Amino acid sequence: MRHFDIHRPDEAIRSSLIDKIDNLTKPKGSLGRLEELALQIGMAQQTLSPTLRNPCNILFAADHGIEREGVTVSPREVTWQQLGHFARGGAGINFLCEQNGFRLVLVDAGVDYDIPDGHGIIDMKMGRGTGNFLHGPAMTMEEWDECISRGARVVDMVHADGCNVVSFGEMGSGNTSPSSMWMHLLTGISLRECVGAGAGLDSPGIRHKLDVLSRSLANYSGSDDLEEKLAWFGGYELAMAVGGMLRAAALGMIIIVDGFIMTACMAAASRFYPEVLDYAVFGHQGDESGHRLMLEAIGARPVLNLGLRLGEGSGAVCAYPILLSAVNMINNMDSFAKVAVTKYF
Amino acid sequence: MRHFDIHRPDEAIRSSLIDKIDNLTKPKGSLGRLEELALQIGMAQQTLSPTLRNPCNILFAADHGIEREGVTVSPREVTWQQLGHFARGGAGINFLCEQNGFRLVLVDAGVDYDIPDGHGIIDMKMGRGTGNFLHGPAMTMEEWDECISRGARVVDMVHADGCNVVSFGEMGSGNTSPSSMWMHLLTGISLRECVGAGAGLDSPGIRHKLDVLSRSLANYSGSDDLEEKLAWFGGYELAMAVGGMLRAAALGMIIIVDGFIMTACMAAASRFYPEVLDYAVFGHQGDESGHRLMLEAIGARPVLNLGLRLGEGSGAVCAYPILLSAVNMINNMDSFAKVAVTKYF
Repeated sequence: MRHFDIHRPDEAIRSSLIDKIDNLTKPKGSLGRLEELALQIGMAQQTLSPTLRNPCNILFAADHGIEREGVTVSPREVTWQQLGHFARGGAGINFLCEQNGFRLVLVDAGVDYDIPDGHGIIDMKMGRGTGNFLHGPAMTMEEWDECISRGARVVDMVHADGCNVVSFGEMGSGNTSPSSMWMHLLTGISLRECVGAGAGLDSPGIRHKLDVLSRSLANYSGSDDLEEKLAWFGGYELAMAVGGMLRAAALGMIIIVDGFIMTACMAAASRFYPEVLDYAVFGHQGDESGHRLMLEAIGARPVLNLGLRLGEGSGAVCAYPILLSAVNMINNMDSFAKVAVTKYF
Repeated sequence: MRHFDIHRPDEAIRSSLIDKIDNLTKPKGSLGRLEELALQIGMAQQTLSPTLRNPCNILFAADHGIEREGVTVSPREVTWQQLGHFARGGAGINFLCEQNGFRLVLVDAGVDYDIPDGHGIIDMKMGRGTGNFLHGPAMTMEEWDECISRGARVVDMVHADGCNVVSFGEMGSGNTSPSSMWMHLLTGISLRECVGAGAGLDSPGIRHKLDVLSRSLANYSGSDDLEEKLAWFGGYELAMAVGGMLRAAALGMIIIVDGFIMTACMAAASRFYPEVLDYAVFGHQGDESGHRLMLEAIGARPVLNLGLRLGEGSGAVCAYPILLSAVNMINNMDSFAKVAVTKYF
């Protein structure tokens, strides 16, 4: 993995942050998760007055060779159709971004369609979909490295525009398949428990998907190197998200992790740089069956649990108001020292 | 219980609502809880284009005779101090209301202090705290009826100002004690499982609280009538919240239910008028130990689970962005019929 300069937050400020939170006018600990988030964000930003500015949802779209094996109900053309739909507004992620003040940044990471100019979609196209990993690598190591770099570059762009909190989303027919492979590779959980319904498979469909992925694993002919395996079974949008997450942490940005697919990306990122987790807030536990297991495996506790399974960054963006509440709490609540209220513990 | 004209939503519109939600540009069901909330709010408002307007958090404050028995770490004077603090801004509920566009409506339901004029606190004072229910009724049936009416009147006021979504909060040192009694009376769950730490009791404190409440129950000398029991072990702010919830449902307003105490109020309201639940969204599962059990007993599934135990309506107000997302979804997302995206199921 290429080098990212990610630092663990300096512990020196922790006790001051805890002291500030404990002296707000409320029973100690009574704002629960908001207090934990305020502490985490304050630590990541190394300040007693953290802020969240210009939130962005970066949505990487790409197609997948493995989709040819009938592992999803979502046809390949839905990837570019939905990407266009996002650009015009009117999709799920659009109303969520609008409501929560997010800029939606759309990236063609490797969609099987010639996206016309003029839609504001950032061109990071690696190709018209990955290779079919049932028969060979989804991408070369050179492509993998390039994806990591391109994902990082998109984060540099939004950071330059003043964004300090970012979520990542994806669109790609078939992309729960590479995610399930990554989950298996990264957690050791049996492939059967890593495979779910995706966009809506029935039970026979899930059995077929598991069979395809099991055979893909058996056919693997690369080395024992984890990075090579992730590239082999990966997706362009997943690899770019990994690069984006690592750059975001290096820049001290807060990362809101979306559902199953983005959790797989964070699991990958944190395998190379465990420090990235100091900057990561897990926004949502989705409905994909393996998601809970993967969150447990990496010790993550999601903010929301709304049964979403849309992707696009939807769960992360839904969680943003809770992060904002945490920051508003630490900045806007009075302390017992300031007001005439008896501090009773 | 006095009469409230609460109607179950007409079922005729349900299939049209489901059809609209199912044809939005997403895999069917993939927006999980947002889809369920959109359906519920659409049903309650009897429209395919529901709206949430001028949200209000009505916060009833009152003192409790049972507080004299040492059942809480929060001294009695904290009730009026905090009410004043809410009026000046700077408390927990203030930043949450500001962030989420809520009007905070403060009501003196029976605080043990002469609240000066000019702070915008609505005077519905029933007395300077209830009677101590260890030795007799907290309030008379006449007071109970008056509380129900006054709570309803406050809801009439905010409704007249254009509010169609309301949450209720409370402030009152010792008020988890009446709530635990209500939970026991309404669900039949053993008093031991209904009693928790409140604002921060330790284990010996919880044992003492349970002992006081058990003796209070043994000392009860009223009739078998549920309403009389609720009044006997009640609180002015709890009774007003019950009246407020029932009037809100009668007016077709959406009610966001806060934590342990407000769930006890909704459990009471729904015992007299089960239809009130059609208008109720349970915002948050709090940290008070009995809350989960009470939610299960009334078949409620909270939107959030953030470990809050502040009261004030905080959990309900935190949940509002999710309700807003549900409404934005059904109003602002495109249907497959409108855009060129393959509907794949």
